[in-house]
Amino acid sequence: MPAASIPAIRTEIEDALSKFVASKVADLALIDEFIAPAANTLSGYILEGGKRFRPVFAYLGYLGAGGQAGRPIAKAVAALELVHVCALIHDDLMDGSDTRRNQPSIHRSFEKVHKEENMKGDGARFGAAAAILLGDLALAWSDALIYEAGSEGALLNTALPLFYEMRQELMAGQYLDVLEGVRSESNRVRSSKIAKLKSGKYSIERPLQFGAALAGSDLELLEDFSKFGLPLGEAFQLRDDVLGIFGEPAITGKPSGDDIKEGKRTLLIALTLERCNKSDQEIIEAALGDRTLTEAQLLQVQDVISRCGALDQCERMITELFDNAVSALNNSDCNGDIKKLLIEMALAATQREK
Amino acid sequence: MPAASIPAIRTEIEDALSKFVASKVADLALIDEFIAPAANTLSGYILEGGKRFRPVFAYLGYLGAGGQAGRPIAKAVAALELVHVCALIHDDLMDGSDTRRNQPSIHRSFEKVHKEENMKGDGARFGAAAAILLGDLALAWSDALIYEAGSEGALLNTALPLFYEMRQELMAGQYLDVLEGVRSESNRVRSSKIAKLKSGKYSIERPLQFGAALAGSDLELLEDFSKFGLPLGEAFQLRDDVLGIFGEPAITGKPSGDDIKEGKRTLLIALTLERCNKSDQEIIEAALGDRTLTEAQLLQVQDVISRCGALDQCERMITELFDNAVSALNNSDCNGDIKKLLIEMALAATQREK
Repeated sequence: MPAASIPAIRTEIEDALSKFVASKVADLALIDEFIAPAANTLSGYILEGGKRFRPVFAYLGYLGAGGQAGRPIAKAVAALELVHVCALIHDDLMDGSDTRRNQPSIHRSFEKVHKEENMKGDGARFGAAAAILLGDLALAWSDALIYEAGSEGALLNTALPLFYEMRQELMAGQYLDVLEGVRSESNRVRSSKIAKLKSGKYSIERPLQFGAALAGSDLELLEDFSKFGLPLGEAFQLRDDVLGIFGEPAITGKPSGDDIKEGKRTLLIALTLERCNKSDQEIIEAALGDRTLTEAQLLQVQDVISRCGALDQCERMITELFDNAVSALNNSDCNGDIKKLLIEMALAATQREK
Repeated sequence: MPAASIPAIRTEIEDALSKFVASKVADLALIDEFIAPAANTLSGYILEGGKRFRPVFAYLGYLGAGGQAGRPIAKAVAALELVHVCALIHDDLMDGSDTRRNQPSIHRSFEKVHKEENMKGDGARFGAAAAILLGDLALAWSDALIYEAGSEGALLNTALPLFYEMRQELMAGQYLDVLEGVRSESNRVRSSKIAKLKSGKYSIERPLQFGAALAGSDLELLEDFSKFGLPLGEAFQLRDDVLGIFGEPAITGKPSGDDIKEGKRTLLIALTLERCNKSDQEIIEAALGDRTLTEAQLLQVQDVISRCGALDQCERMITELFDNAVSALNNSDCNGDIKKLLIEMALAATQREK
């Protein structure tokens, strides 16, 4: 067997995803010709883009626990990407985000079709309905893909409860995030807890453990992966917080300052509100959720976040969490070659620009 | 073993559902105390109401194919109700429906909480987000419940592909229904096809086949259940069409004329537009999608539908479809005692008032 590499793993995952999605699109087209355009939109959304962080971490968890590479495992971990697609489509709808990966979000893309084809009724309502249903479909597909993997021999019985737990934690985290946006006070303890749930567990810890369980991992390695995955997931989320305010739109594929316009009370915002003076706090509070925020106002917000030291603190936290994660990994029983690949992924997750 | 009865089956299903939901609500409360109210709302929605048609048909499909009653099978078929809960929550949100089973729909109920607790931001947006996420959760729970059933011994391998196919058909049918609402022409062929997908297959045929597959049914009985389930499902949907316009709000739990206000182009509407004259057509077209429709205007619409003979035609179709279904069932290899119960359910599905 050739040495595993991240690009090779990614290729296997893309292959599993594209074969599965193509077969589902064909099934849908047989049901009714009018579904084909929507099925193709979903297929394009799934296949054209995405960093595949979660499936890659799961694949590495599997190899790190001594599993052998192969087709069933690529399918099983690719299912995580379908869960993620549901989360993205529904999240963009809930947040009213226009853009994802430099393309219109799903609800906007159907709104556009509604307008272009001069359809009846409310275009926004049509876009929302299409996004709800295509997200549901992606979620339902994740189970169908797992089932295919299981029937081809991936060891699933111990892994499935982790898969279900991960999805429940994701939805709980999303709900708490939405709730945080409407509750009157923002505080660091809450923001941090929600970030842990939404990202710490969902993005890295659970995928790693799911992969390890597919290889029949013992409990000790599952716990070690938790010690690596949780801090890394937090660092991953903090990087997201920074990119959501300071990211370069041409690279992130999202408009600049998107998180501010959407009123997201991230940990970075909580740190800022803790550190800055009252007049700066007012600038932040006024900007949060203001969908008409100008570039000049955004610059002012960015200036407050930098000036009060919250940005530096956030960067120091990312570095510290990364270091903790790597040292936990080094002390674990994970296969040595795979440790190197996991550190490569850890760097990609925390030093990325998109 | 005592003879099976519909009430006994329903009790087993309620029991499986309530135990599962209680354990999930407890899991969620452990994640974070702020989730508990939302988890309780979902739990109440699932447990307080619902005719459980789909799980009961699946249970009967299982018994009819020679399966033995018991706990795992009640769990496996109860999963269908969780899929249905997702469909209802998301459907009400897409349609903008205020009411379900005489209670506020999920999005409206969270909108109410937003208002009562004087929360920040847009209440409608909060309600929509909560409905999207709780629907997703119910859908994800359906798999977790199936998994529990499988691990307790329900024969799942042959049945799961049917479960996945059913969910995909449901979402495809919902999408086509939404699309039909924005396309400019309404025609009977389209309405009938969508009704077949959304209701014919999803409500009766697939549940029956799923249950039969759980009992290791041969292909012949699966096909016989199709011959029974498809026409019956169409009749079920036609009854829905009639109730959506002529139903008694106190009994249906939905406002009168809800389908008209939501602009639903049902088969009953298509029949009406085919049969009535131009000025009556204009009355129908003007009323469809008019959310401010008065009681007097609704009476006028009801009058057009009766006067042109579409209502009678619809009732004749229901009777004919019911007769076809029953004669297919009588010619099948389904267990004789279970045939009687299936006919009892067929009557309940087509003669109901809610």
